[in-house]
Amino acid sequence: MFKKVLVANRGEIAVQIIRALHDLHIKAVAVYSVADKDSLFVSLADEAVCIGGFQPSESYLNMSQIISAANLTGCEAIHPGYGFLSENPEFADLCTKCHIKYIGPSSKLITLMGNKANARSTMKKHGVPVIPGSDGPVKGLKEAKEVADKIGYPILLKAVAGGGGKGIREVDHAADLESAFLQTQEEARISFDDDRIYIEKLLHGAKHVEMQVIADNFGNVVYLPERDCSMQRNHQKIMEESPCTQISSAQRQQIGELLAKTTREIGYTNTGTYEFLMDNKNNMYFMEMNARLQVEHTISEEVTGIELIKAQILVAANEKLPFTQKDAEVKGYAIECRLNAEDPENNFMPSPGTISKLFLPMGTLGVRIDSGVTTGSFISPYYDSMIAKLIVHMDDRKDAVTKMKRMLKELQINGVKTNTNFLSTLLNTDAFKKSTYTNEFVQKHLLTEQGGFHESN
Amino acid sequence: MFKKVLVANRGEIAVQIIRALHDLHIKAVAVYSVADKDSLFVSLADEAVCIGGFQPSESYLNMSQIISAANLTGCEAIHPGYGFLSENPEFADLCTKCHIKYIGPSSKLITLMGNKANARSTMKKHGVPVIPGSDGPVKGLKEAKEVADKIGYPILLKAVAGGGGKGIREVDHAADLESAFLQTQEEARISFDDDRIYIEKLLHGAKHVEMQVIADNFGNVVYLPERDCSMQRNHQKIMEESPCTQISSAQRQQIGELLAKTTREIGYTNTGTYEFLMDNKNNMYFMEMNARLQVEHTISEEVTGIELIKAQILVAANEKLPFTQKDAEVKGYAIECRLNAEDPENNFMPSPGTISKLFLPMGTLGVRIDSGVTTGSFISPYYDSMIAKLIVHMDDRKDAVTKMKRMLKELQINGVKTNTNFLSTLLNTDAFKKSTYTNEFVQKHLLTEQGGFHESN
Repeated sequence: MFKKVLVANRGEIAVQIIRALHDLHIKAVAVYSVADKDSLFVSLADEAVCIGGFQPSESYLNMSQIISAANLTGCEAIHPGYGFLSENPEFADLCTKCHIKYIGPSSKLITLMGNKANARSTMKKHGVPVIPGSDGPVKGLKEAKEVADKIGYPILLKAVAGGGGKGIREVDHAADLESAFLQTQEEARISFDDDRIYIEKLLHGAKHVEMQVIADNFGNVVYLPERDCSMQRNHQKIMEESPCTQISSAQRQQIGELLAKTTREIGYTNTGTYEFLMDNKNNMYFMEMNARLQVEHTISEEVTGIELIKAQILVAANEKLPFTQKDAEVKGYAIECRLNAEDPENNFMPSPGTISKLFLPMGTLGVRIDSGVTTGSFISPYYDSMIAKLIVHMDDRKDAVTKMKRMLKELQINGVKTNTNFLSTLLNTDAFKKSTYTNEFVQKHLLTEQGGFHESN
Repeated sequence: MFKKVLVANRGEIAVQIIRALHDLHIKAVAVYSVADKDSLFVSLADEAVCIGGFQPSESYLNMSQIISAANLTGCEAIHPGYGFLSENPEFADLCTKCHIKYIGPSSKLITLMGNKANARSTMKKHGVPVIPGSDGPVKGLKEAKEVADKIGYPILLKAVAGGGGKGIREVDHAADLESAFLQTQEEARISFDDDRIYIEKLLHGAKHVEMQVIADNFGNVVYLPERDCSMQRNHQKIMEESPCTQISSAQRQQIGELLAKTTREIGYTNTGTYEFLMDNKNNMYFMEMNARLQVEHTISEEVTGIELIKAQILVAANEKLPFTQKDAEVKGYAIECRLNAEDPENNFMPSPGTISKLFLPMGTLGVRIDSGVTTGSFISPYYDSMIAKLIVHMDDRKDAVTKMKRMLKELQINGVKTNTNFLSTLLNTDAFKKSTYTNEFVQKHLLTEQGGFHESN
């Protein structure tokens, strides 16, 4: 097992990775920007190295600085967390070249999944249903027209190198295709230096459902119960639940086994998440794979009792998974709310500032709060504005939701604006109660035309 | 169901009762002493009534003030928590007379269990093994001698009205009996206005093992997995675990079924805990029953997923238990550490003061922290000095203990002294690792003659 590992991230995920390392009796080295010198994750680490300035490019994206810090402190491995360098094949490669173990999938698989068209065709080849669309990138406008006519409008034009809501354009009518195609191509060229475009049918009113897998180097793959992440605002998840109440255990097992098989066949190791759109007939279509740990892995931990960061570290150290598929059965129901420092009434603008008072409602059965901040912490405008992940795990959904609502009422935070009321509103909608909400729900029903939220909406 | 309930307690247990009420959609009324006006539990309640001065006798033990507050605010029931009025039959009676539901067992059963000799003979009658000793109080010195000779020394002389370590005297030799008997009698007369004494054989090197039951008014009784509470200092529990690793599921079931049957037969409702001494051959002997919720109920909640305060409220509202014995099966392993504001190096003297900095290591799977304080809270010399209950629940004991040790390392508290290092020391002893510790372990192996603790011990 590793003796010392570097954590190439910040905030709450750095805290949780440090804890997983400590629980495995491994020393943890934090790297931090000058903005983060007084952060909780820095104080919890065994050693900490300042790697640069406020801007992510100067610090948390600064590969050579991070590798230097790892060498300087004698780290044998690096955990990238989520965001920053967590899906960057170049970084994974660099680690390997410097004889540092990258805690994640191989750079080859990160590259494969980073190319959305290749990911799509790989899935298709392995029998995973994909959204109707082109086979890989289209060769030009002519093929785009043929594909669109065949699958029917509305469609999405997607940059091969895109992701996270960038390089996507909706086309509702054949007449709009040409100009949209040329614009998307141009945008992709500028943003990603890669103008290849592929096409998918646009599914309206679908749920975002995803399934995480964890795989070791000995062919053992375990899939975790699916998560419903359809509560989204501008393609950003804000509340997740597991399991998805619309999915039967038979469907879970069927898709899970297919994904475990695919994972094994493509040689994918460590953890990753297959993201799907699910229509109202429960047809699931592969969208993309996140080749890293995700924010919402917590609710999968809760419903299974499996600790995923620990498992990632074990796998990277070439150990076998310490659990089997049977251990990943659904036990109860979990929900996560992302508490952000932002102003819902002002288009969810980040609300940086110093947290002068903080009461997070920890305590009672089933409550878990993962946070990287304490009273006095500064929420920096340079990084994401998450204050904490509020998580509840109970035997049944109703009790978990009741508890989450109560927690949101108890919360006290001074110094920054938060999305607390917005989260409460989501929990009180009929669509949430009945679990019928889709990934368009928030945009369509809770926000103004300008994208803002008012309690009176 | 009740609409509004008064919480006749303070600190962390008041916080948890208020939360249970809110999770059942019931309004919570807090009562508080002037010392507690800025406390967390006061701020979380829907209404709060000041009931008197700093001294418990002026406020939390002031029955008429509490009843007045309940009437004033229109409360239909009162939850007494633990300590204070929670085992006072007079208070339970007074509630009933004032048409307020007392959330706990009937005053008749509180009275029965409050008389330790009667509790003992009741158990004996129902086939629950008791420690060898007298049948009820002895009539005088002559009978005391006869009983002691029969069961053999060492023995304990115990005041019928005693409890919590008061009115107990150890006698090791026949020659010491007479003076010890007269002294105990005199002490009991002064302390409890009741000089009756009963006799028990003193069991050296035993574990304190207890089992909680919850019973409704319809004959349904559920027993919870046992707790090992042998880590004690001056008869005070400081760390508890569930289940007890020395007890097999067969033994658990056998003793549990016997206690459920007894509970039903004596007509005991709501919750209570049967406390036993267990010798190194796993023979269990009834000691006494706590006719109330206990501090350590949390670990039973964790290993079963059953919320006990909620269940108490449902039972008091004459509802049926919403779970069965099958739901109370052991799932994993839980441990609780009581974090106190006290000075272990100075005989564990309470260390009152203002908490100027507080970092409680919430977060990650299986961690629960029940606390009634926040940064800025004042730990008053008038009440118990508990800061928080640190609880970990994992699939296995080793992982839970590792996590608890890590949490104790992360803890940061300024402004008061704490028993953090003492708790870490306990977790690192061989006796704890092997689970062989008895209720004499701390006193014998970790404390100085003067009762203090030094890390170098």
